[in-house]
Amino acid sequence: MTNEPKKIILDCDPGHDDAIALLLAHGNPNIELLAVTTVVGNQTLEKVTRNALAVARIANITNVPFAAGSSRPLVRTIEVAPDIHGESGLDGPVLPEPVISLDSRHAIDLIIDTIMSHPPKTITLVPTGGLTNIALAVRKEPRIAERVKEVVLMGGGYHVGNWSAVAEFNIKIDPEAAHIVFNEKWPLTMVGLDLTHQALATPEVIEKIAAVNTQPAQFVLELLEFFGKMYKKAQGFTYPPVHDPCAVAYVINSALIETKRVPVNIELTGTLTLGMTVADFRFPADENCHTQVATKLDHTGFWDLIVDALKRIGEVKI
Amino acid sequence: MTNEPKKIILDCDPGHDDAIALLLAHGNPNIELLAVTTVVGNQTLEKVTRNALAVARIANITNVPFAAGSSRPLVRTIEVAPDIHGESGLDGPVLPEPVISLDSRHAIDLIIDTIMSHPPKTITLVPTGGLTNIALAVRKEPRIAERVKEVVLMGGGYHVGNWSAVAEFNIKIDPEAAHIVFNEKWPLTMVGLDLTHQALATPEVIEKIAAVNTQPAQFVLELLEFFGKMYKKAQGFTYPPVHDPCAVAYVINSALIETKRVPVNIELTGTLTLGMTVADFRFPADENCHTQVATKLDHTGFWDLIVDALKRIGEVKI
Amino acid sequence: MTNEPKKIILDCDPGHDDAIALLLAHGNPNIELLAVTTVVGNQTLEKVTRNALAVARIANITNVPFAAGSSRPLVRTIEVAPDIHGESGLDGPVLPEPVISLDSRHAIDLIIDTIMSHPPKTITLVPTGGLTNIALAVRKEPRIAERVKEVVLMGGGYHVGNWSAVAEFNIKIDPEAAHIVFNEKWPLTMVGLDLTHQALATPEVIEKIAAVNTQPAQFVLELLEFFGKMYKKAQGFTYPPVHDPCAVAYVINSALIETKRVPVNIELTGTLTLGMTVADFRFPADENCHTQVATKLDHTGFWDLIVDALKRIGEVKI
Amino acid sequence: MTNEPKKIILDCDPGHDDAIALLLAHGNPNIELLAVTTVVGNQTLEKVTRNALAVARIANITNVPFAAGSSRPLVRTIEVAPDIHGESGLDGPVLPEPVISLDSRHAIDLIIDTIMSHPPKTITLVPTGGLTNIALAVRKEPRIAERVKEVVLMGGGYHVGNWSAVAEFNIKIDPEAAHIVFNEKWPLTMVGLDLTHQALATPEVIEKIAAVNTQPAQFVLELLEFFGKMYKKAQGFTYPPVHDPCAVAYVINSALIETKRVPVNIELTGTLTLGMTVADFRFPADENCHTQVATKLDHTGFWDLIVDALKRIGEVKI
Repeated sequence: MTNEPKKIILDCDPGHDDAIALLLAHGNPNIELLAVTTVVGNQTLEKVTRNALAVARIANITNVPFAAGSSRPLVRTIEVAPDIHGESGLDGPVLPEPVISLDSRHAIDLIIDTIMSHPPKTITLVPTGGLTNIALAVRKEPRIAERVKEVVLMGGGYHVGNWSAVAEFNIKIDPEAAHIVFNEKWPLTMVGLDLTHQALATPEVIEKIAAVNTQPAQFVLELLEFFGKMYKKAQGFTYPPVHDPCAVAYVINSALIETKRVPVNIELTGTLTLGMTVADFRFPADENCHTQVATKLDHTGFWDLIVDALKRIGEVKI
Repeated sequence: MTNEPKKIILDCDPGHDDAIALLLAHGNPNIELLAVTTVVGNQTLEKVTRNALAVARIANITNVPFAAGSSRPLVRTIEVAPDIHGESGLDGPVLPEPVISLDSRHAIDLIIDTIMSHPPKTITLVPTGGLTNIALAVRKEPRIAERVKEVVLMGGGYHVGNWSAVAEFNIKIDPEAAHIVFNEKWPLTMVGLDLTHQALATPEVIEKIAAVNTQPAQFVLELLEFFGKMYKKAQGFTYPPVHDPCAVAYVINSALIETKRVPVNIELTGTLTLGMTVADFRFPADENCHTQVATKLDHTGFWDLIVDALKRIGEVKI
Repeated sequence: MTNEPKKIILDCDPGHDDAIALLLAHGNPNIELLAVTTVVGNQTLEKVTRNALAVARIANITNVPFAAGSSRPLVRTIEVAPDIHGESGLDGPVLPEPVISLDSRHAIDLIIDTIMSHPPKTITLVPTGGLTNIALAVRKEPRIAERVKEVVLMGGGYHVGNWSAVAEFNIKIDPEAAHIVFNEKWPLTMVGLDLTHQALATPEVIEKIAAVNTQPAQFVLELLEFFGKMYKKAQGFTYPPVHDPCAVAYVINSALIETKRVPVNIELTGTLTLGMTVADFRFPADENCHTQVATKLDHTGFWDLIVDALKRIGEVKI
Repeated sequence: MTNEPKKIILDCDPGHDDAIALLLAHGNPNIELLAVTTVVGNQTLEKVTRNALAVARIANITNVPFAAGSSRPLVRTIEVAPDIHGESGLDGPVLPEPVISLDSRHAIDLIIDTIMSHPPKTITLVPTGGLTNIALAVRKEPRIAERVKEVVLMGGGYHVGNWSAVAEFNIKIDPEAAHIVFNEKWPLTMVGLDLTHQALATPEVIEKIAAVNTQPAQFVLELLEFFGKMYKKAQGFTYPPVHDPCAVAYVINSALIETKRVPVNIELTGTLTLGMTVADFRFPADENCHTQVATKLDHTGFWDLIVDALKRIGEVKI
């Protein structure tokens, strides 16, 4: 392959779909995973950090720094999502003890150091949790806003909400951080619920994953089984929407996801709309518009990427 | 016909589409138009009231009381829409001098008196402007909330805005009034932009109206020509969306418009979302849900109603 | 006396201090009480209206129209104050059955009709409850804003709150109504908590009232005894602040109350400050400033007015 | 003297009064100045940082690390105060070229490292600008909230505003940061405008400072002359209020400033009240209340401290 792999930093809160996003980033040859940082979200920082390290062991990720970040949102009090991810944040499979250690730096310093030590416009930030770490990083070191290539995040929704009628979990749990991130001038792709509710783990998908027949694939199956059960119970979904890998998939192959360039901003004072990602579709976006929203997923292409990554990861015995 | 015609009170701010709504209500045999009230909106109260009376003359409406209502929103300052409706509020056609006089009552008293003097559950309120009059009426006489049959209003939008990214003109110009109206427990159908942007006056529609070949039909053509020109310029529409008659059409024949029962409330404190009609599609509506939103229009059926009303109105020479 | 008595409309929600305000307005020769209107506030509309009529009997007020008004605030849900005024809204004394009947008009129509049928700039509006009625009246008939002489209201506080850290009950229960009233261009005097917390019913005051030795005076004593007990328990006051008569006292003799001209507006979106009367003391008020706030009370002069009114009312046997 | 000097970190945005606060902290023997950090506020970060270093030279501060911090507020856009502090942020005196260099660390890391490397409860944070640095520091390292002794800040006002009717500059320019700082559980003393408007640089004060007759004293005189001129012009003060040294003075000798323990929180959504420090005086503060507000200044004692510090600094020739 002639293309350079895309360098990314994955900022996440595993979380079932975060775990799959991490496997995809690790297993896909078009991605070079420079760092993994964790942030409070689906569960407490302590839990999601432990989960991230456990996933690293499951997928045999050994050469990537992992750092823990924010244990609470900027302004609001902590909200976690045990109704979707269980008490551990990654309920379902039995998790192994981690074998790698955390980087000694705070996540925001690992993010800053990684970006500032690489050439400009070479690193894509991929946040799949609340945006606290990214917001703190860009406030501590404003130059990263010009230095990253782009931000591709899972969060928000222009016509769909899940944590309120019109707001999505990752944005609503730290709307001020989201406001910071959406208002920096880096190119930003919002892979929101409008898109990720198309990324359903259907029986055909499950079957293809099962056919990989490795322990990492088995781990994914157990994640999806639990995730599917919780999504059915909490939100009435027939098959669970697997959000976070969609952002990674867009970095790998943007042809899999249609987007539309529109201004997006975050509502901070709404009574019913707090944390809404307000997208303005009324007029053609002007040339300075630095935000776009994901609109349509190639479902087959997306899941084929996941299956392919699992095949490349291969067997990992623990 | 065995069905009783539906008794309605039309509360409007003509306004090109309000004028057509009035013609539809007058010309359709399934509607008994009990009263017409006016409210500041597309233009000042003085202008929209004069326009309403002029339309009455054009369509030969002689036996219906017209009353003027609120000259400003409850809390906010006045906003009008000359970019869509011109300086008069009904630019385009030459308007005749009115021949009928206004009822001496304030609109809110005409609304209250009409509702309280008819049997319970017989009158449908059809607001097609800002909701100031309706809000004042139900605050002055709370019993009308139980006494009307239902409210069918043009306003709002669950996924579409026109006066901001996510808010519609009629709601945004008086969001507190809208909050009052949406929170009363009467059955309420929101015919919003999601629906009315389907009610486009296409060339085929224009042709059918032209074929009626009367002065009232000619008046509608001139309205639509001006309206189309303004909508193209201000919002980039190829053909103009003719909002207000959709609400009347729903009263005439609800089969023309698909609806979905969802809770809807009005955002009052949002910075980006003020006046948004926040609809919650996440869960099946519970049985006490008194609001529904219009989702899909039978375009042909809708415009056939308009054409039919114009035919029934017939020739009116001025 | 050569001065014409001041014509007032008292809009109230009795309420212990409202009752005393009504007695003061009735008993003082400088006041001509044109109408009494009631509004939900200290208790439900039904209760405060009954209380108003009972006070009329106690004080032998027979030639003044009483009308019931709004049973709920404009936008917010009802809040009442049983912790201060008891379940009846006028707990303490035994209330007699009313003997006069309510005017058939809604309070807002009585207010409008009274103002519009008198010469311009002759009537002072004295609201001592939530501002729902006044707001509805001026929205229904905008001309009253220019026609009244002034508005002297009990409510708000520039440095003191009682229904939140920085908001007062009358304003906070209907902040949108207050916003309407404070933004009309009539001269408006805010007699707020800064002032009324000086109007304490001290033992000396009690003694003077007791010395009047009539049934109406006895009624006032019983009001103050209950009011004092409740204020001690709910807010830790040694002696109860008797708010509402201060507004009437200012109309009678403005020399009793020092005021300062400052812009005042109502906070509608604050999380901690909803309903705050935000006064701007930073700069000298400009000449168009139509609002002023009461700052300092002549305690002796004020209570002497109350005692004098009771003496003039004299004995009323029921 | 038997008392240990108080260890402080001064986080500031010089700024005329910040400069005097720095001189006071440096010159007073009861203070051990561990670090000085700068933050955008009275002027841009670049300007206030240069000013801080220039003041260091003027007062011969050589052994204290200075670090630059946040160049913009967390969420809001930058607001500076040239109408009070001039274009440089320290207009008036001629500023010398700095001779010391900045610490290489970001202010928030210098703050964190300093606090974490000292024993618990030994360091007082003294912010005299916007609270961006402090907020970022406690979000990056939450343990500092328990480890500092207390926070004594200049900012806010319970009954006085200067950047709006009810909000003070330091709080209003970064209300989200202030919300973070006021809601951490460290003991926090708000030295707000209620107090600092008592710290007027009267002619007597000027005379005493002049009598010190050193170059640093001359520098203070030139600061106060410019500051006085600007305060007269912008806000109508006869003598300028010298805010920031009041916070340092409280650390030196708390007997100089009376305080009252009350809950204080920051308004984030108010239209008229954004950034207000809402203090609740209604009830006796409960024992967990960790905030107090400064209420009354010993004017003579305060200015004597300043004069004393200038005498101790002595002559510094540049």
